[in-house]
Amino acid sequence: MCGIVGVTNSFEAPLITYYALHALQHRGQEATGIVSRKEDANGKMIFSIIKGEGLVSEVFSDFDEWGKVLNGNACIGHNRYSTSGEGSRKNIQPFLVNYHMGHLAVAHNGNLSNASVLRERMSKEGAIFQTTSDTEVILHLIAKSEFDEQQKQIIDALSQIDGAFSVVILTDTMLAGARDPFGFRPLCIGKKNGSYIITSESCALDINYAEYIRDVNPGELVIIPDGAKSSDEIISIEYSKPKPKLRQCIFEYIYFTRPDSKIFGHNVDKMRRRLGKVLARKHPVIEPDGGKVTVISVPDSSNTTALGYKNELVKMGIEAKYELGLIRSHYIGRTFISPGQQSREIGVRIKFNTVKGVLENRTVVVVDDSIVRGTTSFQLINLIREAKPKSIHLRISSPPILYPCYYGMDFPSREELIAHRLNGDIEAIRKYVGVDSLEYLTIPELITILEDDIADNYCTTCFSGVYPTTIDTNFTKDIYEF
Amino acid sequence: MCGIVGVTNSFEAPLITYYALHALQHRGQEATGIVSRKEDANGKMIFSIIKGEGLVSEVFSDFDEWGKVLNGNACIGHNRYSTSGEGSRKNIQPFLVNYHMGHLAVAHNGNLSNASVLRERMSKEGAIFQTTSDTEVILHLIAKSEFDEQQKQIIDALSQIDGAFSVVILTDTMLAGARDPFGFRPLCIGKKNGSYIITSESCALDINYAEYIRDVNPGELVIIPDGAKSSDEIISIEYSKPKPKLRQCIFEYIYFTRPDSKIFGHNVDKMRRRLGKVLARKHPVIEPDGGKVTVISVPDSSNTTALGYKNELVKMGIEAKYELGLIRSHYIGRTFISPGQQSREIGVRIKFNTVKGVLENRTVVVVDDSIVRGTTSFQLINLIREAKPKSIHLRISSPPILYPCYYGMDFPSREELIAHRLNGDIEAIRKYVGVDSLEYLTIPELITILEDDIADNYCTTCFSGVYPTTIDTNFTKDIYEF
Amino acid sequence: MCGIVGVTNSFEAPLITYYALHALQHRGQEATGIVSRKEDANGKMIFSIIKGEGLVSEVFSDFDEWGKVLNGNACIGHNRYSTSGEGSRKNIQPFLVNYHMGHLAVAHNGNLSNASVLRERMSKEGAIFQTTSDTEVILHLIAKSEFDEQQKQIIDALSQIDGAFSVVILTDTMLAGARDPFGFRPLCIGKKNGSYIITSESCALDINYAEYIRDVNPGELVIIPDGAKSSDEIISIEYSKPKPKLRQCIFEYIYFTRPDSKIFGHNVDKMRRRLGKVLARKHPVIEPDGGKVTVISVPDSSNTTALGYKNELVKMGIEAKYELGLIRSHYIGRTFISPGQQSREIGVRIKFNTVKGVLENRTVVVVDDSIVRGTTSFQLINLIREAKPKSIHLRISSPPILYPCYYGMDFPSREELIAHRLNGDIEAIRKYVGVDSLEYLTIPELITILEDDIADNYCTTCFSGVYPTTIDTNFTKDIYEF
Amino acid sequence: MCGIVGVTNSFEAPLITYYALHALQHRGQEATGIVSRKEDANGKMIFSIIKGEGLVSEVFSDFDEWGKVLNGNACIGHNRYSTSGEGSRKNIQPFLVNYHMGHLAVAHNGNLSNASVLRERMSKEGAIFQTTSDTEVILHLIAKSEFDEQQKQIIDALSQIDGAFSVVILTDTMLAGARDPFGFRPLCIGKKNGSYIITSESCALDINYAEYIRDVNPGELVIIPDGAKSSDEIISIEYSKPKPKLRQCIFEYIYFTRPDSKIFGHNVDKMRRRLGKVLARKHPVIEPDGGKVTVISVPDSSNTTALGYKNELVKMGIEAKYELGLIRSHYIGRTFISPGQQSREIGVRIKFNTVKGVLENRTVVVVDDSIVRGTTSFQLINLIREAKPKSIHLRISSPPILYPCYYGMDFPSREELIAHRLNGDIEAIRKYVGVDSLEYLTIPELITILEDDIADNYCTTCFSGVYPTTIDTNFTKDIYEF
Repeated sequence: MCGIVGVTNSFEAPLITYYALHALQHRGQEATGIVSRKEDANGKMIFSIIKGEGLVSEVFSDFDEWGKVLNGNACIGHNRYSTSGEGSRKNIQPFLVNYHMGHLAVAHNGNLSNASVLRERMSKEGAIFQTTSDTEVILHLIAKSEFDEQQKQIIDALSQIDGAFSVVILTDTMLAGARDPFGFRPLCIGKKNGSYIITSESCALDINYAEYIRDVNPGELVIIPDGAKSSDEIISIEYSKPKPKLRQCIFEYIYFTRPDSKIFGHNVDKMRRRLGKVLARKHPVIEPDGGKVTVISVPDSSNTTALGYKNELVKMGIEAKYELGLIRSHYIGRTFISPGQQSREIGVRIKFNTVKGVLENRTVVVVDDSIVRGTTSFQLINLIREAKPKSIHLRISSPPILYPCYYGMDFPSREELIAHRLNGDIEAIRKYVGVDSLEYLTIPELITILEDDIADNYCTTCFSGVYPTTIDTNFTKDIYEF
Repeated sequence: MCGIVGVTNSFEAPLITYYALHALQHRGQEATGIVSRKEDANGKMIFSIIKGEGLVSEVFSDFDEWGKVLNGNACIGHNRYSTSGEGSRKNIQPFLVNYHMGHLAVAHNGNLSNASVLRERMSKEGAIFQTTSDTEVILHLIAKSEFDEQQKQIIDALSQIDGAFSVVILTDTMLAGARDPFGFRPLCIGKKNGSYIITSESCALDINYAEYIRDVNPGELVIIPDGAKSSDEIISIEYSKPKPKLRQCIFEYIYFTRPDSKIFGHNVDKMRRRLGKVLARKHPVIEPDGGKVTVISVPDSSNTTALGYKNELVKMGIEAKYELGLIRSHYIGRTFISPGQQSREIGVRIKFNTVKGVLENRTVVVVDDSIVRGTTSFQLINLIREAKPKSIHLRISSPPILYPCYYGMDFPSREELIAHRLNGDIEAIRKYVGVDSLEYLTIPELITILEDDIADNYCTTCFSGVYPTTIDTNFTKDIYEF
Repeated sequence: MCGIVGVTNSFEAPLITYYALHALQHRGQEATGIVSRKEDANGKMIFSIIKGEGLVSEVFSDFDEWGKVLNGNACIGHNRYSTSGEGSRKNIQPFLVNYHMGHLAVAHNGNLSNASVLRERMSKEGAIFQTTSDTEVILHLIAKSEFDEQQKQIIDALSQIDGAFSVVILTDTMLAGARDPFGFRPLCIGKKNGSYIITSESCALDINYAEYIRDVNPGELVIIPDGAKSSDEIISIEYSKPKPKLRQCIFEYIYFTRPDSKIFGHNVDKMRRRLGKVLARKHPVIEPDGGKVTVISVPDSSNTTALGYKNELVKMGIEAKYELGLIRSHYIGRTFISPGQQSREIGVRIKFNTVKGVLENRTVVVVDDSIVRGTTSFQLINLIREAKPKSIHLRISSPPILYPCYYGMDFPSREELIAHRLNGDIEAIRKYVGVDSLEYLTIPELITILEDDIADNYCTTCFSGVYPTTIDTNFTKDIYEF
Repeated sequence: MCGIVGVTNSFEAPLITYYALHALQHRGQEATGIVSRKEDANGKMIFSIIKGEGLVSEVFSDFDEWGKVLNGNACIGHNRYSTSGEGSRKNIQPFLVNYHMGHLAVAHNGNLSNASVLRERMSKEGAIFQTTSDTEVILHLIAKSEFDEQQKQIIDALSQIDGAFSVVILTDTMLAGARDPFGFRPLCIGKKNGSYIITSESCALDINYAEYIRDVNPGELVIIPDGAKSSDEIISIEYSKPKPKLRQCIFEYIYFTRPDSKIFGHNVDKMRRRLGKVLARKHPVIEPDGGKVTVISVPDSSNTTALGYKNELVKMGIEAKYELGLIRSHYIGRTFISPGQQSREIGVRIKFNTVKGVLENRTVVVVDDSIVRGTTSFQLINLIREAKPKSIHLRISSPPILYPCYYGMDFPSREELIAHRLNGDIEAIRKYVGVDSLEYLTIPELITILEDDIADNYCTTCFSGVYPTTIDTNFTKDIYEF
């Protein structure tokens, strides 16, 4: 997972990019970077770049400094989610290179499933690779294209890559954005005065007071030529024919996207509420004696879902309260590692504390979005247990995660997934986590949140194991280790 | 405002202190420090100290490093709230010095109102001051005491200082903690196995699985001698006679303390809920046509109060919903300053975004804890307005702040307080902030949350202007500027 | 100018490289880097790299850290001389990439005169350039070679590049080193136990107790296969046919190389002494009345030459003393810029001070190696003048520098060269610098230091303007600015 | 050893101080700091301070930054020599405090021999100590003085301290400087336009184009009142009566002071030359067959002495040459520690390399200033031996160091001194170091360099063991460890 943004036709492009990256910070906290393009007095295009490890507020901490370096009228930016160990510094995006048509800057979000095949092929033809990043593969494909127009070169490159990706590209003459034909990852277009913005989530438009125009379509390449004055001048190219079935990542609704964003044509907040609603309908917690239940969320990711769950319980005639039973500390740094031998649980304890008064002697329903390794849930439940509730019921607004994602979601290896380790046995997971009852949404239940939307247009592979693309079985994160 | 902690009789003292400071991070993010004491092979006490600017997770980022320096069995720690400009590095607490009775380490929370008088007096007697900190005044008072027992020296010092303070002291033979006679700031005692902990809020005990024993009483000095094996060995001294009336800071309930803490004998969560309740009873928002109202909080500080407000509306028969209308980003660094000329509002915009779906065309009640300068409220309301609600009603769970606090709450100068600037005219504030209606709690309404507790035991000076102590009219933050 | 080193067949390779870079520090203080290669348990070659801006002692300050990362048995390293402004971080050598034959790490010293032509050609074929460095050109040439053996690919690449270069290359199976056919820059081979070392100057062998074997010949590619046990296994390839005339840089003798090194078959110390000798013979300072002259050097670069000058004067029957008239401070950082308006001269003043007692009322001969911009000489003479010598005579152990060097010597642009600005008028330079007499060596005089060596084998372009190769007239430092 | 400077009556005071500290860098590379005083619009004195670990060029690297903070018209500055382990940050000078008469900033050079006694006494009276520095003792003595005039307070303080010290003091109304009555450490007064400068060595005047006026006398307190317009306004107070015999540190001539400085009324360069002369006269190296000897120095500290040695040999009719046999690298950082197991000698090897051509098969005389631990000499001789000289003769321009210095020279403990360990047996030291002959100056020989000056006015304790003051036998570096 990552967050990307491209801005063009505005002297404020660096600031718009900066604020957009702030809004997309939840999509990646490992590293961030911005490329800026300006024209010098002789009409020559000058590209500059700043990138580094850390949050946007850390890498771009001093506007007096970065504002001098990044002062063009077109930019692209990137937030990176995960790191692949040593040497990863070189892999920070965006990438900026020179090739025979001029400059090329690229930022992308996702995973190419045929990257190793493409690398090998181009290596044989004399290409040299300086990093292990998929982004470099895209650069080489464009540079090596036999077409002599940049637009055709980009189409040529896009048509060769498989997998899940959204990408923004900045050249000497245009800003481009593209989504993979399956539409795994979101990408949308916005407008602010005369400036166009292409970005992962609409919350990056809101922070800039920019107007949402539309999503980039799966399989679409959008080109905004320099100086484009109206939306009519935006070039739309359907680069992928025949178009495969859509496979939009349903997990973006469950967890990843910010609730104030709109992706795949839906408000995420609304989808979260529906998740809570169907979870309540299908997996309610009912006190035998009609007693009250206390619904709490794991802040902040399941707040909306938990509220939706409680509201639906009430509609179903069940007496239920929404309470702030867990307090979350927001001062924990990105890289917090709890020191000390006997302190294995302290990580969760530093992030969360319970409000005992609202939990003690209550029937508590904890609504969470997913269980991955199970260790955090285990520790969290332990913490809640100390507040002495009558019982704890865990409700998960997704099906069990049983399969790894090759499309950009950074799950651990299959062996680390608790649902896989316990063979999908929910009763066993319940015992492991230590709750009085545990229920997940089933896949069919999950799909009902889509309502009028076509369920078949979504990817549910991590739950079902049905992969929409051929998977490179040699695929590992570090295959190109230097 | 600051957070303090002292731990003794445990080889885990540095870790307990570290985790406590994490839990107290909300009381101060400017700087932090820990002093550790250990005995060397010859029975000599060795004190070591690490302190620096930044969050606990920043200053104590690498346990492999600080764990080697701070490895004793008694510690004190401090989180600092505000900075007073250049040279402030020297003022970071705790302070560690040598005097004729040995080592002396002190961390304190609050403001001494007679610090300048004491400084002047001791200066004349030959004392030299290396910082502008009140803590140094306490050190000098102890060192200059004519008593020849450390315990009596500390009592002597405490009896000379006026104002609001909670303090922890570590010497070669004991850990001590004291609260000012008015009881302005909280301080409590906890226990974990054989170890004793003195700290600002009980959440610092919870994070360490420690047990809450009791509050340190106003005007009480608590001494935990080295090697104390049971609570019987804790020495309690009423150092202040005659004891004045209590003046516990009511603002700790409204905003400052974490809701999961217990201070002044009350769960803060419960007090926040009562604030919401009385606010709803006295200042409800009622749609003329009986329509629904949407209650939202300003996350995270007013979450509990907003929930209490909505629940009470429902009890009153008013149709009301609690919604997550504002999303807060938690990635903004401590020192974020929004760059760019035309971006004055961007600070609020980077912190918050609206969930349009739950606000559009609704009657929205925004519950917030206080209005200080008014600028943040103004910008926040502007942001909410863009989501096109039918109307916006602001409800504040405190009376208007009209007077500066000389007891540790870091309000700006009186001239900057919006309520003062507009002469307490609520209608004028309403217009400034830009809401359809604005209501505050009155002081009498506020006091009702105390229920059985004695209202007269609380300080409400910032609302009423009735100061419980003589105020040094020369008092300014930088009076001792070097 | 830069310093390079390669080491193979030793578990101490990283340490040997580190110490060699220390010894070569005078060839470049801007940046430094080391690539290390090790075999993992599966026989796979793992390359790791550390590089950064600053001195060797700064970038490799903590052995506990870098020793863990760089722990292979073959290494190459590099010290960089000059920086080309922003973005230069990417240009720090060595370069490490992957291509179809495996890993490729390269460090080089010099300037390719046809780099822009090669870049353009390879760009058209689809190559992408991530930096503005000549090194990247060499990498691409190897990767794009149509040969299918690595050795042939390297020969193919070397035979396409023009200009001045010495280069070391590390692959999965060998260490290689090569010098350009003109032999502009030095490169030699050494041996330590079973390990081979290829490096710029022999002082990098001495620091490692390694034995000097021989120079790499101009136009020679030397390959040391992994596991080579004796010098017989070193492969020597004359890659350049027909071989042009040699053009070894005579300025290496005058200034650049350390006096304790042996290059081009000569001890540099001896050459410096000869410079002093011929300078004395041809340009003595003789007091009319047979009085004594005081010879001083500009420490440390002209120490040896000045001593040689004085000794020769004595042999000529002129009464002369060698004195330490200038004291040099060695604490000035790499990036010292003197602050303050009225302090233009302070840079020289911070570096040097005079010993008044040995200069006052004396006939002082200052021996220096060269005059570039003239500003330092001007300020230095001013400083000496304050010590009130009877007269100051400046003797330069090289001819006037009139032409820029395109072969790696980092002179400023021609417009900044004082000798060029004043049309080579020595009397004008004398007035500018402010000495009583000024004399340079002439080119014929300079050449006499070569004695039995063939004068025609040396490059004296910066004095004569006769360039041995075709110069790319578009050549500028920043032609590939990104 | 440390370097100090004070400047007054000049808007350039911060720059003058900065350049002076550069010139005094050889007296201390561990840490540095500057205090600046300016008057604000209301006539109030504002003091500001910057200090940190590292070289002057590191701590004061960016004039744009420090120039804004330090912008007054009076300053004091300090370079610190040695560190006493962790926590030493607090001990960096100058010290700046507030006391009843206003501000007090102090920087000092030396060691107080009665510091622990004074600390204890003042502690009993209620003083608190925040550091382990002697400077803090001076501050307390001034602040606690019963006199009510600042000048008298300073005299009172100075008359109570024993040991070796030179000190500069800046208050709200004056700059003061004082030397201890024995005159152990140098201190002089200079003038630049209307500004006065008090500093350790005259080279700090030269760098500022300032004129040397005179030394501060032993036992003298010099006060420069603000606005002093001529030297007549400088107040000179003989604070010490009866005055003891002078005990100026003779080791300042041998090693510590820069040769271009004038201290104790003598040019250091001249004293070094005399050292070489007497060393040659008394301990010449004569080839039995009248052959030539080659004299080399250990750069840079013994350059002058070695040159004087060779010149005297020639005068004595011995054929001798001065050669640059050792090349010193000046890129080694302050904190260089050579990594690697088998590399014990590498430290010396990184600093020095031999010029083989001038040493091979020669009778080499190495002139060095002193032998402390012996390890460096041992390694250096080993290095020279590799160049295959016929023989190596070591001549030391001081007597054997047998006793620790309690007056500021940072020798190691007595147990580490090689001359002590080997009972002053020069033959044993010769064997240890590994030379063909070794000779030291005797104390009587050393004293001859003083010529007309009174030998009895100098301290030779480190050679003789006759301590001029009572030594606190409890004295250790870390006695006040916190």
